[in-house]
Amino acid sequence: MQKRFVYCDNAATTRLSPTVLQAMMPFFTEDFGNPSGSYKLAHHSARAVLSARRQAADILGAEASELFFTSGGSEADNWAVKSAAELGAQSGKRHIVTTAVEHHAVLNSCKYLERQGFEVTYLMPDRFGIVSAEKVAAALRADTALVSVMLANNEVGTLMPVAEVGKLCRERGVLFHTDAVQAVGHIPVDVRSLNCDMLSLSGHKFHAPKGVGALFVRKEVRLPNFIDGGQQEYGRRAGTENTAGIVGLAQALAESAEGMDERAGRLRTLRDRLEEAVLSLPDTVLNGHKSLRLPSVLNVAFRGIEAESMLVMLDMYGVSASGGSACTTGSDAPSHVLTAMGAGAEQARSSIRFSLGDDCTEEDIEYVIDTVTLCRDKLSKLSR
Amino acid sequence: MQKRFVYCDNAATTRLSPTVLQAMMPFFTEDFGNPSGSYKLAHHSARAVLSARRQAADILGAEASELFFTSGGSEADNWAVKSAAELGAQSGKRHIVTTAVEHHAVLNSCKYLERQGFEVTYLMPDRFGIVSAEKVAAALRADTALVSVMLANNEVGTLMPVAEVGKLCRERGVLFHTDAVQAVGHIPVDVRSLNCDMLSLSGHKFHAPKGVGALFVRKEVRLPNFIDGGQQEYGRRAGTENTAGIVGLAQALAESAEGMDERAGRLRTLRDRLEEAVLSLPDTVLNGHKSLRLPSVLNVAFRGIEAESMLVMLDMYGVSASGGSACTTGSDAPSHVLTAMGAGAEQARSSIRFSLGDDCTEEDIEYVIDTVTLCRDKLSKLSR
Repeated sequence: MQKRFVYCDNAATTRLSPTVLQAMMPFFTEDFGNPSGSYKLAHHSARAVLSARRQAADILGAEASELFFTSGGSEADNWAVKSAAELGAQSGKRHIVTTAVEHHAVLNSCKYLERQGFEVTYLMPDRFGIVSAEKVAAALRADTALVSVMLANNEVGTLMPVAEVGKLCRERGVLFHTDAVQAVGHIPVDVRSLNCDMLSLSGHKFHAPKGVGALFVRKEVRLPNFIDGGQQEYGRRAGTENTAGIVGLAQALAESAEGMDERAGRLRTLRDRLEEAVLSLPDTVLNGHKSLRLPSVLNVAFRGIEAESMLVMLDMYGVSASGGSACTTGSDAPSHVLTAMGAGAEQARSSIRFSLGDDCTEEDIEYVIDTVTLCRDKLSKLSR
Repeated sequence: MQKRFVYCDNAATTRLSPTVLQAMMPFFTEDFGNPSGSYKLAHHSARAVLSARRQAADILGAEASELFFTSGGSEADNWAVKSAAELGAQSGKRHIVTTAVEHHAVLNSCKYLERQGFEVTYLMPDRFGIVSAEKVAAALRADTALVSVMLANNEVGTLMPVAEVGKLCRERGVLFHTDAVQAVGHIPVDVRSLNCDMLSLSGHKFHAPKGVGALFVRKEVRLPNFIDGGQQEYGRRAGTENTAGIVGLAQALAESAEGMDERAGRLRTLRDRLEEAVLSLPDTVLNGHKSLRLPSVLNVAFRGIEAESMLVMLDMYGVSASGGSACTTGSDAPSHVLTAMGAGAEQARSSIRFSLGDDCTEEDIEYVIDTVTLCRDKLSKLSR
């Protein structure tokens, strides 16, 4: 078995697209102007930011004036959740509904708000990771300021019934935010069909650079600012624009939209091949929903095996995968997503996420299958 | 007179250093891993971030664990001011002291806090833009949670007696933040000598890319988080690390520290030559302090002339300069800095900031002098 390098952690971050980098380069060289300046060099930058905003907004079904560039998904989530709470509090609404399987950028923003006197309902998912719209409906109260439900889960890839939740919130007059960080660039995302008031996305999850993301805010919503200061981003998100990053984000989003169905189909086929082979190994269990799932993600529990050891061994063979999400690394706690879905701590600690990328080939997948089989075998012998 | 392009808006943003870009490139190509991953590719990124943190902290006289990378100066300012206020409020302190000439990232954060029930004292500077430590001392109260005084003003370049203010705050047990966005990379900045608890900086002001900055937080200060989520930045600033940006910031900071005195001396000579020539024109006034000033900045009022028209004309001749700061463009109000320093609205609206960069030559300065002379002449004839 010839050693290969197969990157299977695309849910953590993706390789920057070479054509995205190419689009960014002028803004690292001659077009270095501050978009707020009043001279030609500055106008180049300002036009590039505007054009990127229009392009990205268009792909998401939004208006340009509804899309605000941020430093990433975490900032977007913090802004949406904390500022919507602030807005709610102005009319005495201090209750928030979210799910127990959100990303920590949402969950820890909610924990922060609890310390500020807000009440938060964390809805439990079913064993596939889904929180139904009915469950959300039952949790709404007269003083609910915000509902935040993610579009695709970052650990297991499960897709939530966000359009339905959004419709419900709109009818009940409650602000609705969705963390679409794992979805944008991978499945079609249209802010109108999703009925959302706010939507977070992150560039580096779809081959744009790290350090840039965006928050969609529906034009009817007067969301308070999160970062105050200058007049950038229509006066709603201060700070000199990360021109190269913004241009890169729009370019990557355009590239991801092009032929998305075909690429998703291809990824799904590869993922299903991996899934079939891995689940044929003894003591393996699929985490997440069989079909309502991102096409690139496979999360599997290898019972009786420590995921940490398996990951180290996989890495020795050139396979990069992940236990839980990248953002929880360094923490000893078992995945909050898997435990909320009903997995015991032991199952959670034995689970591994494979998230495939477009550069993954059939040969790569066969190599991953062989490697996983080998590693599982060695480790299960050791643990006996 | 042969047309030249002379970029004189380095206080708005700087050209990315080619060697900084070179240092960033691996993180836009093969080293794309998420630093939080558990595999080799991720370890490369994690090591690069740690090494950048150590290098940058060292230059600033801080410990690595005291330096938190942000998306820029505005985020750093918002974090420092809003979170210090939150910390103060926990022990009933709801008063903040700052100056009327701060950057809007500080001022508008204070405005936000006023809406949350905080009381803010905005100290007026003298006519040179300086707020004395005595003035700060007189404003302190038993319930003062935070003092925020900038190191160098972004419009006129005036240097504040920050070390003295910091010493005073330390003695009185009040948290002290300084916005050093204009100073870092240009004059020596040492967090210990400045006696500050928090210090903001922004990469793109010293030839690093846009979209990355940092907040120094003294290790004794338990500043609440601003962006909650994952465990990045010692659990204190969530969001996947902008690896390329962080590496670029450290590299640019190192480059700026190398031969800083010599470069500052050269810039000062060029600036003084420009200043002497411009102030010899009729109806011109220097804004800011003659000597207590950044070496690169010259802010001049051209009485009887609209700065806007002058800037357009200068741009036609290839000279990029600025009226007020980049972050206030789009606003019609006269500069809050100049008006606080006692200038009338007319003088403020006739003021232009020239901020020189290292690539500026003596010939460039002569060209700028000729161009300014010409433009002032034409415009003053028009306005008669």
